[in-house]
Amino acid sequence: MTKKPYRPAFRDRARPPRRAFRHGRERNDDDAILLYGWHTVTAALANPARRIRRLLATENALRRLADDGIALPLAPEPVRPDALDARLTPDAVHQGLLAEADPLSSPDIEELDRSGIVLVLDQITDPHNVGAILRTAAAFAVAAVVTTARHSPQATGVLAKAASGALEHVPIVTVQNLARGLSALKERGFFTVGLDSGAPDDLATVGLRAPLALVLGAEGKGLRQLTAATCDRLACLALPGAIKSLNVSNAATLALYIAGRAIG
Amino acid sequence: MTKKPYRPAFRDRARPPRRAFRHGRERNDDDAILLYGWHTVTAALANPARRIRRLLATENALRRLADDGIALPLAPEPVRPDALDARLTPDAVHQGLLAEADPLSSPDIEELDRSGIVLVLDQITDPHNVGAILRTAAAFAVAAVVTTARHSPQATGVLAKAASGALEHVPIVTVQNLARGLSALKERGFFTVGLDSGAPDDLATVGLRAPLALVLGAEGKGLRQLTAATCDRLACLALPGAIKSLNVSNAATLALYIAGRAIG
Repeated sequence: MTKKPYRPAFRDRARPPRRAFRHGRERNDDDAILLYGWHTVTAALANPARRIRRLLATENALRRLADDGIALPLAPEPVRPDALDARLTPDAVHQGLLAEADPLSSPDIEELDRSGIVLVLDQITDPHNVGAILRTAAAFAVAAVVTTARHSPQATGVLAKAASGALEHVPIVTVQNLARGLSALKERGFFTVGLDSGAPDDLATVGLRAPLALVLGAEGKGLRQLTAATCDRLACLALPGAIKSLNVSNAATLALYIAGRAIG
Repeated sequence: MTKKPYRPAFRDRARPPRRAFRHGRERNDDDAILLYGWHTVTAALANPARRIRRLLATENALRRLADDGIALPLAPEPVRPDALDARLTPDAVHQGLLAEADPLSSPDIEELDRSGIVLVLDQITDPHNVGAILRTAAAFAVAAVVTTARHSPQATGVLAKAASGALEHVPIVTVQNLARGLSALKERGFFTVGLDSGAPDDLATVGLRAPLALVLGAEGKGLRQLTAATCDRLACLALPGAIKSLNVSNAATLALYIAGRAIG
């Protein structure tokens, strides 16, 4: 593979040093976001609310798009696979597709549907985990995911890839202050339940009702004190084995399944 | 941070080029494995079956080990945090602890307890996913995880970190040929169920019974044809939303919860 010149505007900062993660700088300076991978890009192409600025595709990907009858909202730019490789980290699987796009708009808490479940993420910083949580949220038809403006990864790059198209299905509500966001959810009628492995009550037994907000904290740290204090209830996931906590995206999956069964 | 000399014997190959992943080379040449992170290392220290060769710890970590009354099976080597940083990838969170250890021995299928659930992984290559699956397996008291010798990541480094101590709790059975491994499980009485998002039947309704083997395929590829053909049954996870598949570790979590409830 030939060496490509450095192109900072398109480089996926999927594995930057820790500091860059925490400050959520995985975007271009002009707020364009980067989408790559088959599911991620084709879901964006199918979303009329998503404005695509550029679509770069390999010959194979162009053929597959045509074979699948996927309508393109703009003319694609044919590229060689190594041109995409050069824009991404070595472990990024782009499958011949890369798009630059506008971010989607974020609804306000006051606009959220009062009938469903929302997930609230308390400073979960790992973009793989947040992407997997969004994918799970889309699979469980979650009404929205609420995150903080700071200490959350941006909806681009590796997060978008891990979300596997879910960015186009799950609205992301960004709040400046999570405790105030939870209070706004409560005012809107949401029952707010924080997941806490140290809580005495099992999520399956706390009398869940819709509309429901399930609140998840970061790996290791868990919920911040003010977050936990603002929730109506705290609950754990009952686990029979030697390890008593799950990866946070796995915890989100289990919590959504239990909540979906309880609310019906 | 001062620049450290290159030390190939200890370097965590957590994010190597793709080819290295696939061939599972994340070990030292002499088969020592690398464990880092608080939960991962302290679980190994507490496991009498795990032989630790070297234990490197920062001053803070040594104090925390003492405060928690954790018995050390060998004299730790005090190091500065940047000496651990230099041995790992920039995104590795070592929390001041790193151990070199012998791998644990793998039981044979013929030795597995006939009463529980085993997870079978069909060429799942991502070490984060396999680590998270092991953590979930330990949380659900799974009897063993069965993987293939080839096309599976080694139980070291980033996999061990993502497993968060689960390597010490869940036996890993390594087989050369997965279809033969499944046949051996069936001969031992296991009901073998493959997870397949295209299967018509929901896992919750297929009449699960113990001993049970749940078989998971790789992201995107799913189960290989011979793997699927060898399973007693195929089943999907019923998902109400727009996206019909989960990250594989999330699928494992949901499958284990459903199976645990069905078997009781």
